[in-house]
Amino acid sequence: MTAEILCVGTEILLGDIINTNAAYLAKELAQLGISCYHQSVVGDNPARLMESLEHGFARADILIMTGGLGPTYDDLTKETVAKYFGLEMELHEPALEAMRRFFGRIGREMTKNNEKQAMMPKGATVFPNDRGTAPGLAVEKDGKTAILMPGPPREMTAMFQSQARPFLEGKSGKRFVSRGIHLFGIGESTVESILHDKMERMTNPTVAPYAKEGEVLLRVTAAAADENEAETMLAPVVEEICGIFPEHVYGVDIGSLQNALVGELLRRGKTIATAESCTGGIVASRITDIAGASKTFGCGVTAYANETKIKLLGVNPATLESFGAVSKETAVEMAAGIRKISGADIGVSTTGVAGPDGGTDEKPVGLVWVGVSTENGTEAFELRLSRGYAGDRAIIRNMAALNALSLALKALKRL
Amino acid sequence: MTAEILCVGTEILLGDIINTNAAYLAKELAQLGISCYHQSVVGDNPARLMESLEHGFARADILIMTGGLGPTYDDLTKETVAKYFGLEMELHEPALEAMRRFFGRIGREMTKNNEKQAMMPKGATVFPNDRGTAPGLAVEKDGKTAILMPGPPREMTAMFQSQARPFLEGKSGKRFVSRGIHLFGIGESTVESILHDKMERMTNPTVAPYAKEGEVLLRVTAAAADENEAETMLAPVVEEICGIFPEHVYGVDIGSLQNALVGELLRRGKTIATAESCTGGIVASRITDIAGASKTFGCGVTAYANETKIKLLGVNPATLESFGAVSKETAVEMAAGIRKISGADIGVSTTGVAGPDGGTDEKPVGLVWVGVSTENGTEAFELRLSRGYAGDRAIIRNMAALNALSLALKALKRL
Repeated sequence: MTAEILCVGTEILLGDIINTNAAYLAKELAQLGISCYHQSVVGDNPARLMESLEHGFARADILIMTGGLGPTYDDLTKETVAKYFGLEMELHEPALEAMRRFFGRIGREMTKNNEKQAMMPKGATVFPNDRGTAPGLAVEKDGKTAILMPGPPREMTAMFQSQARPFLEGKSGKRFVSRGIHLFGIGESTVESILHDKMERMTNPTVAPYAKEGEVLLRVTAAAADENEAETMLAPVVEEICGIFPEHVYGVDIGSLQNALVGELLRRGKTIATAESCTGGIVASRITDIAGASKTFGCGVTAYANETKIKLLGVNPATLESFGAVSKETAVEMAAGIRKISGADIGVSTTGVAGPDGGTDEKPVGLVWVGVSTENGTEAFELRLSRGYAGDRAIIRNMAALNALSLALKALKRL
Repeated sequence: MTAEILCVGTEILLGDIINTNAAYLAKELAQLGISCYHQSVVGDNPARLMESLEHGFARADILIMTGGLGPTYDDLTKETVAKYFGLEMELHEPALEAMRRFFGRIGREMTKNNEKQAMMPKGATVFPNDRGTAPGLAVEKDGKTAILMPGPPREMTAMFQSQARPFLEGKSGKRFVSRGIHLFGIGESTVESILHDKMERMTNPTVAPYAKEGEVLLRVTAAAADENEAETMLAPVVEEICGIFPEHVYGVDIGSLQNALVGELLRRGKTIATAESCTGGIVASRITDIAGASKTFGCGVTAYANETKIKLLGVNPATLESFGAVSKETAVEMAAGIRKISGADIGVSTTGVAGPDGGTDEKPVGLVWVGVSTENGTEAFELRLSRGYAGDRAIIRNMAALNALSLALKALKRL
């Protein structure tokens, strides 16, 4: 069974957005054991889209498509696919009803335009959209299948997982079950060189590494007749891999460092507080991303100015004077200070040079100190983020925040 | 003149890397006035690559290709292009010499494999590579042009700017110039229904709307013989559109709300401070995303717990008792409190129910109060975000933060 990915959208052709959908779908297809030899992008143009459908179906059994399902006159993916298959468009009442409910829930008026989104090629399998107005769909005829999903990644990924993926699994007759092993503080190429032989040798389960900024996700996937059998195949492989990287694995299927941290805080009945300079609120915002964080987090200070460090965190002006704001000493006093004023079990702090300006020979862009304070004492850790990261402010801030979350999690586990 | 982008690489087909090269090249082509109606990805497979060349050149004059120029046996882009054009491969001495110098500079031994990288289709224009070993090239025959560049983005982008772009400019007669008009607080479909007739009527400049979460970007693009003429065509259209949405346009080519806010603060020499409950640090982190924010922002408090609201922001316990944490009164006291303790010109606060739990009939998920305090007084604005946004915690938090930034910007403009 072969598939192709066809993304529809003039905004991709103009380079206004990066086509992350293609990479996401490519990875999912690989996991489902469906071969994919082509990805294409075409604009919202019916003639060119029709030509792309003809090319695609000449080569593959399945076209996975995204985009062009919006309410406006130039969104024509559905209509063109219907024409390709020789199907009429008809109103899909349940889709219209779902859209009415969606608009009711968001308290906005449904426009006449939106009704177009409930028109479907006759006989299509409709995929409801929990996160937006455009339903997705699958159309099958003469051994060819088109799967259409909306373009916005958060709508597309949710729809793929809940509906398109099971639909594709139904075609392959197999169940695919995956575990995601999350690692932090180690590069993808290092992980890959350690696991290379194992990855080459294994065919089921398979192991594949994915890099996301500063992190590595190892996806272990088993294919079996049913879910139980797949789980049984997965368990020993996951255990073995976690044992290879004891310092770096922070969880399995845990989503993110902040999720791991808040989960562990809740389990242990502990609390945390943040004092941020260079990360400017990112650490607090990541922690409070997690529903239920209010039981573990009550107080954060973004102490960008020295006065704030002194006034709200109790940093000694002499420390700032002698060692500067970006120093081990200041990081220590910030972490200890926020722990004291908040009464939390853990205080975590960041102070550094995020750039692009403000670096010196002694304290270059990318130098960051992370402080961690607990009943066991207060430590600070030096990070040098500029070197690997081309001095990019957003990356330095993000890496500093990830390190703060990771160091807090490690300190928590020692409590 | 039309071009297509063809990226070669099995790692893209497997979803191991996101194809940022295509977006980069798409944007550059649009700026050069070269129409691009297709992007494709194909693996390192000579038969499928040959088919892609045939498809591509049947539609376009120019194929811009990346990837497959490496030293290993499976890198076959150059060889396949030579075959397509019926050209022989020959050793390009200056390319080999440049490669020897590159290896000397990085202190590594040049392998026999690398010599393959100096083999070129006869008559090709060779693009030296300052950042790696693989030279790029352009091949022209019978009105068709193939431009081949290496896959790694830092090598490709440098080569494009220094060599491929000048090569293409020689071919293109036109310049394309765009303006991005940023709107907040209005939906894409509303914008589109207001501008629909205008958009249909206009051919040069063109107007196209793009939705990003909670925002709309209107892209206005003019094509002309030179940049000045394009600018002259753009100016009245941009002015007219800004005049249609005076409440919603927050800037032109400004990137983001936080960029608009920090820019305006710097221009006016004013400062801001944040007191966040439901947004948990997002507003502070957005402001400090912007390089130079330290001149306008020194202090933020994430007051998730009531004690923090009382202790650090000076909220009256009786206010929390009588009206609750999510209330107009608390938002007002938080905004006034942070303004007072920080000494900033503007204090902005958020307090709300981000969900998914914690909602009541009276205060449902998505109810958010944003407080804004200036020398003109302190106000609070009620947002009802749950309805439109399916109770999604991340979206509610993000929309609350965007509204806080937008309301702060509006208050700033009244100072």
